[in-house]
Amino acid sequence: MTTGAAPLGGLAPMDRAARLERVMAAMGRAGCQALVVTKPVNVRWLCGFTGSSATAVVAQDRLTVITDGRYRSQIDEQLAAAEVEATVVITRELQEPVVEAVGSAERVGLEANDVTWARQRAFAEWLAPRRLVATDDLIETERRIKDSGEIARLRAAATIADRALDVIRPELGRSRTERAVAQLLDRTMLELGAEATSFATIVAAGPNSAKPHATPTDRVIGPGDMVVVDFGAKVDGYGSDMTRSFIIGPPSERQLSIFCAVELAQAAGVEAVQDGVEEREIDAVCRGVLSEHGLADAFVHGTGHGIGLEIHENPILSSRATGILRSGSVVTVEPGAYLPDYGGIRIEDSVVVTDTGCEPLTTSSKSPTVPTD
Amino acid sequence: MTTGAAPLGGLAPMDRAARLERVMAAMGRAGCQALVVTKPVNVRWLCGFTGSSATAVVAQDRLTVITDGRYRSQIDEQLAAAEVEATVVITRELQEPVVEAVGSAERVGLEANDVTWARQRAFAEWLAPRRLVATDDLIETERRIKDSGEIARLRAAATIADRALDVIRPELGRSRTERAVAQLLDRTMLELGAEATSFATIVAAGPNSAKPHATPTDRVIGPGDMVVVDFGAKVDGYGSDMTRSFIIGPPSERQLSIFCAVELAQAAGVEAVQDGVEEREIDAVCRGVLSEHGLADAFVHGTGHGIGLEIHENPILSSRATGILRSGSVVTVEPGAYLPDYGGIRIEDSVVVTDTGCEPLTTSSKSPTVPTD
Repeated sequence: MTTGAAPLGGLAPMDRAARLERVMAAMGRAGCQALVVTKPVNVRWLCGFTGSSATAVVAQDRLTVITDGRYRSQIDEQLAAAEVEATVVITRELQEPVVEAVGSAERVGLEANDVTWARQRAFAEWLAPRRLVATDDLIETERRIKDSGEIARLRAAATIADRALDVIRPELGRSRTERAVAQLLDRTMLELGAEATSFATIVAAGPNSAKPHATPTDRVIGPGDMVVVDFGAKVDGYGSDMTRSFIIGPPSERQLSIFCAVELAQAAGVEAVQDGVEEREIDAVCRGVLSEHGLADAFVHGTGHGIGLEIHENPILSSRATGILRSGSVVTVEPGAYLPDYGGIRIEDSVVVTDTGCEPLTTSSKSPTVPTD
Repeated sequence: MTTGAAPLGGLAPMDRAARLERVMAAMGRAGCQALVVTKPVNVRWLCGFTGSSATAVVAQDRLTVITDGRYRSQIDEQLAAAEVEATVVITRELQEPVVEAVGSAERVGLEANDVTWARQRAFAEWLAPRRLVATDDLIETERRIKDSGEIARLRAAATIADRALDVIRPELGRSRTERAVAQLLDRTMLELGAEATSFATIVAAGPNSAKPHATPTDRVIGPGDMVVVDFGAKVDGYGSDMTRSFIIGPPSERQLSIFCAVELAQAAGVEAVQDGVEEREIDAVCRGVLSEHGLADAFVHGTGHGIGLEIHENPILSSRATGILRSGSVVTVEPGAYLPDYGGIRIEDSVVVTDTGCEPLTTSSKSPTVPTD
């Protein structure tokens, strides 16, 4: 029942004025004089408002935020807490306030990866004869580079996850079910001050560990199992992400060889992270190590992704990535090897990209050994 | 640590073959020969697959489901469990399998309320010269009417919520924080067999109860507080939704008058639910009762919504609703009154619409009194 308060008081503030400036500069580059922001997490990043109904408009050097009556008091409190100046409109009818906020802009950006086709059709009608511009990750691109307040939150979340793993590690050797371990892990993170888990915790044992996105079941974790534990805590909206893999009881030679290959691949991937490196290079490094161990085909997902207000955000570290890693991004490095009907191993850390390398946020031991009573 | 297994074994099966038939009939009415389903919950409803990457195509009397390599084993297992016949394609490149599945269809439906503008632009290019049709809640409309398997799951979820509330009711009188009560409620639902909560639990005390969508804080719940507790359990994807409101310590006259007005409004709303009634009538009935008590302006949200695989789905019971309630829909009835800086009351049940009225799924006592030790 007892729970630590989320330690927000001690965390560095976030600089939202700088964010608005960055977005307006990006709008200029995209050739639009107004931007309608429909993606909730982008609204939150801009102004701190977390309501499920939220449309923001950036135009004429100012921010307008539109929500409905359910959020009347919440929006005022959250904008004040974030020290954001904005025009707030409380209504269920978007047309009039959007047209008003857009003003004389001739080209209006819409977040094409978020706005639905139905909504785009409505905006086109409301805003005619202005031209709609399909923006592509405009705010997401700005969100790639975290400010010190964001990194402080991500670090706090990662620290909670590290401490929670210490609590559940012994349980893996006590014939618990996947579901029981997952629930204990979740509960422990909440008790340690997480406001929520950052995604649905994965505890996957035996053949289930061969499914990268397994859901915890009532399978009892026992000797001979490989176990993948992938989980994270959320602090003030920012989520951590870490995976550790375990081998229950004496490991077989095959298990150890898979584990070591993945551990080497992960270490090599982390080692490759640095400002200026191509994103796909991190993926290539991990894939190369696994390939040397005959596990190229067993690595069935990308190597990593940015974390922040979303648990999967830019940059995406895959073979198809085209960007360059930059200092201030926070990314996961999480190669894995999955052998259907046998089992899988994944090891994942979250790291802050720096000029000379990277700094890990998650720091739990990577030992696959589980203490026995 | 111990947890009841979700009691799926005893639940009635769901009839997915009938669903595909209904969708094909609806496609005919919408004038399209193929439908691309992008909304994950609609894919799940059609075929049982729950992966985050999923595109389904209904065309040529068959179902094609496309996902990526992460879900290779999961999709086979889930389709088999759901007894669904479908062509499964494992790829990250949608274009080829979508074009193949759509075949000779000339008009292809896209879920306009889900598909992003960016994705619609891509489909338009891939599928040219076929014409894209913006479908509007085509599958959502079919999902309004639940089959017996769905109602069994919703009932199981509601029963878990009822039992969990019994556990936490005494805690409301023990100077716990909102957050502690919310966490205990969540944990209790999991222990009782819920696979998850159906949404983020609301426990809002004192002035916080005036915010319909408050997030639990570290405020200690104490004498004089009105407390709104809004929560639900999820069983096999189907979520329950119930709100109860409490008054801690001896209630003031003003508190009681607000509570009674909301309770009367809610009872009148439930009483009005029946096959054939206009959806907006339920809202009008609740609003009428609150208006008689001078609380018209304090009721700042709609009266209810459907529940199912989504926690808010059709039908929506608001003043702007235009449809007719039909037997087999499952809806909430949840009027509330919110007085900023003072407090709020909301009472909510989930009910199955029947030919002659409705049948409640949530059955917890509505007493606002909290036991004291």
